[in-house]
Amino acid sequence: MGADSHLREAEVESESVFKGVMLDVRRDQVRLPDGKISVREYIRHPGAVVILAQLPNGNLLFERQFRYPLRQVFLELPAGKIDPGETLLDTAQRELLEETGHQAEAWEHLGTMHPCIGYSDERIEIFLARGLRSVGAQALDHNEFLDVLQLSPAAAREAIFAGEITDAKTITALYWLTR
Amino acid sequence: MGADSHLREAEVESESVFKGVMLDVRRDQVRLPDGKISVREYIRHPGAVVILAQLPNGNLLFERQFRYPLRQVFLELPAGKIDPGETLLDTAQRELLEETGHQAEAWEHLGTMHPCIGYSDERIEIFLARGLRSVGAQALDHNEFLDVLQLSPAAAREAIFAGEITDAKTITALYWLTR
Repeated sequence: MGADSHLREAEVESESVFKGVMLDVRRDQVRLPDGKISVREYIRHPGAVVILAQLPNGNLLFERQFRYPLRQVFLELPAGKIDPGETLLDTAQRELLEETGHQAEAWEHLGTMHPCIGYSDERIEIFLARGLRSVGAQALDHNEFLDVLQLSPAAAREAIFAGEITDAKTITALYWLTR
Repeated sequence: MGADSHLREAEVESESVFKGVMLDVRRDQVRLPDGKISVREYIRHPGAVVILAQLPNGNLLFERQFRYPLRQVFLELPAGKIDPGETLLDTAQRELLEETGHQAEAWEHLGTMHPCIGYSDERIEIFLARGLRSVGAQALDHNEFLDVLQLSPAAAREAIFAGEITDAKTITALYWLTR
């Protein structure tokens, strides 16, 4: 704390400025390190998980999903928000099952990323799931539509450099796979 | 388009629900692929750049910056928002100079990432800057405070796996450095 006092900002006042179906937006007055007052606006997010789900053949499960803010279909790893009361592992297992119809024998928590530190408090927990088996169909939310496919880690790497994977949570998780 | 009609959502209605100093939040009604109506809330963002700025000794310039949404100091690459009328290269050169006091001889655009596809239309353009020289002091915005330091690419990789770098734009840009 002491060492970073020239960087830290302190909350003076906090208010909710928009609470929607999905987004919770706050505006805070903050005291800057030089004592002046400024404003910070940001999203409050429950956190999420992203899953490197490795099939017995070494391939990873991917999804193709339309992301409305960018009006574009993205190639991305399975992921989803933490529901109230869930452990991180609960969320990861639920999302993998719902989105891809797969269960895994072995789960490992690799690390944490922050996708959007400028205007969101979201964190995404990265899981590696192995010993995968297909146990049924997708069980998607009523407003969720996606295709499931598989890619080898080498093909995923190529897809990044070809501009076909641009989703930062997916690329960050793939970085962790190279550990 | 045709091939992805089972995934695509169409705008029915769009409204601004919050416009702050920094955040522009919209709520749209959308028609889902099955014809039902749903709601999407998201941030409209002008886009940004992130810079892999490589010193003659091979090290990369990093910053330590307090990010208020997470109340935490982050170790991250230089980055910043595109101002109206700027080219991407203008933004990259301006941000590198303002935040670190450095100019570069050679600039290369490596690729694009999307940090937050679920609720923001932000894109971040990734630049590699080489032939760096220090040309003066930082010239930060009035509400910006940060430390500049350097890390070797190997040390940055270690810092990721040690949990000391969790910012997804930084990790995604470092993935591109391994091309």
